[in-house]
Amino acid sequence: MTPAELTWVDGERAHSLPLPDRGLAFGDGLFETLLLVDGRPVLLEYHRQRLARGLKVLAFPDVGRALDHTLQNVSAAAPSGAAALRVTLTRGGGPRGYLPPSGARPRVIAQLAPQTRPLDAWHDPAKLGVAAIRWPTQPQLAGIKHLNRLEQVLAAKEYRRGGWDEALMLDQRGRAVSVVAGNLFAVIGDRLRTPALDSCGIAGTRRRAVMERWAPALGLAVDEAALSPADLQAARELFYCNSLVGIRAVAALGDARWRDFPVTRALHERYLATLEARA
Amino acid sequence: MTPAELTWVDGERAHSLPLPDRGLAFGDGLFETLLLVDGRPVLLEYHRQRLARGLKVLAFPDVGRALDHTLQNVSAAAPSGAAALRVTLTRGGGPRGYLPPSGARPRVIAQLAPQTRPLDAWHDPAKLGVAAIRWPTQPQLAGIKHLNRLEQVLAAKEYRRGGWDEALMLDQRGRAVSVVAGNLFAVIGDRLRTPALDSCGIAGTRRRAVMERWAPALGLAVDEAALSPADLQAARELFYCNSLVGIRAVAALGDARWRDFPVTRALHERYLATLEARA
Repeated sequence: MTPAELTWVDGERAHSLPLPDRGLAFGDGLFETLLLVDGRPVLLEYHRQRLARGLKVLAFPDVGRALDHTLQNVSAAAPSGAAALRVTLTRGGGPRGYLPPSGARPRVIAQLAPQTRPLDAWHDPAKLGVAAIRWPTQPQLAGIKHLNRLEQVLAAKEYRRGGWDEALMLDQRGRAVSVVAGNLFAVIGDRLRTPALDSCGIAGTRRRAVMERWAPALGLAVDEAALSPADLQAARELFYCNSLVGIRAVAALGDARWRDFPVTRALHERYLATLEARA
Repeated sequence: MTPAELTWVDGERAHSLPLPDRGLAFGDGLFETLLLVDGRPVLLEYHRQRLARGLKVLAFPDVGRALDHTLQNVSAAAPSGAAALRVTLTRGGGPRGYLPPSGARPRVIAQLAPQTRPLDAWHDPAKLGVAAIRWPTQPQLAGIKHLNRLEQVLAAKEYRRGGWDEALMLDQRGRAVSVVAGNLFAVIGDRLRTPALDSCGIAGTRRRAVMERWAPALGLAVDEAALSPADLQAARELFYCNSLVGIRAVAALGDARWRDFPVTRALHERYLATLEARA
């Protein structure tokens, strides 16, 4: 749709997907959204590890070489500066019905779009509403980034309708999980707290980087916890993170307002250092 | 994949889907699987009404004419006798990200495959295991036939691995919901009981026909209820139904066995009468 978007299917430039495809039919697949800087994916190992976990949960055949082949072709074609790469893996074609064919051959679809925003920009802090649509309870698929994402689509429609920048999404019990496209962290006391993702949600690569790299670099402890919307509203700071935005402070959630973001700004600096190191 | 499968995209014969497409990206869409007899869809109004409900839940733009156009083209190309038609509606293309474009233009994908099994055959009663993968809890999307169907894909892998014909799928609390491709009914006392679908599951067109037509024609009352696997095992008869199979008795569920199916056979006769009437 974006004129400058380029697409590859199984490593070759393409404009369409062969049918049938189980990714379309059932959401039978996985995806990753990577930030490329001068053609190089940022935090690639985290993306690979999450993908590997998803492939195991969905019992996909091995796709190692097909993915490498695609990443090579995309990197060679990527613009200098920042670009967004979505890599989608589907279980491929097959006969009608839910049952995957025993000889399923996964497909790798890559979509590359330039990013015009300066990589080192501090984002305007976001105004959040609370989405009425909630995450489904599904511990067996929690954390992985599969293609069944209707709740986030509907929550995105809500934030547009509400005039918000993003939406807080809750689980079936009303506890905070995430925003539509990103994981949430609250500064509570002298720690970071982030929703546990044992029954729903996506375990983001930047969430992992906050927990394993950027917060420890600042001497900050991080807990996974059950957090209510009121817990978030009472936090000293609130921010979310994803692969394209990096770290974005939250300025408003319902009636709660925040103006100063010292911890979030310090984490944002760590994020920028990761970008510069091309880690 | 099946050599004789024919595909249409937006009413025109095609072999591929233009990219990007939100159906592939997020499962942002719906589908129906229709039985065609001599090119005419069986119980079309039930399919249309479920689709209409799904379109409303997903807040899709109107697709009425595009769907009619596709059904006309498919009917004209359909073989005599039985065929399976899958109609998939996606929210179409759009820029990267969960947020649907405000001017989204849905796509209609139709896939037609011949059915070789005689329409009036009584199916070999099915052996069922119990799937380890469970339905997600999601009351806001329960009943509609959207494209987020990973649980059923994984449950289908389980019934193949287990050597079963189908698998009983449970909800997050361990109650019976359905089989992978079909709704369940149990004969308990002098009534039919079928799992309530208020937190998950698909409200099948043949489930509706059992409840509104075929059971009433036999003077049988039907309840929607919470049913445990043990409730099912203690039932006098058990069967499932879907658009292509019609009605299929269950011969085994775990340790429980059934050999006589007087009620299921009587309902099957009602089903055959519906086919003959081309209703």
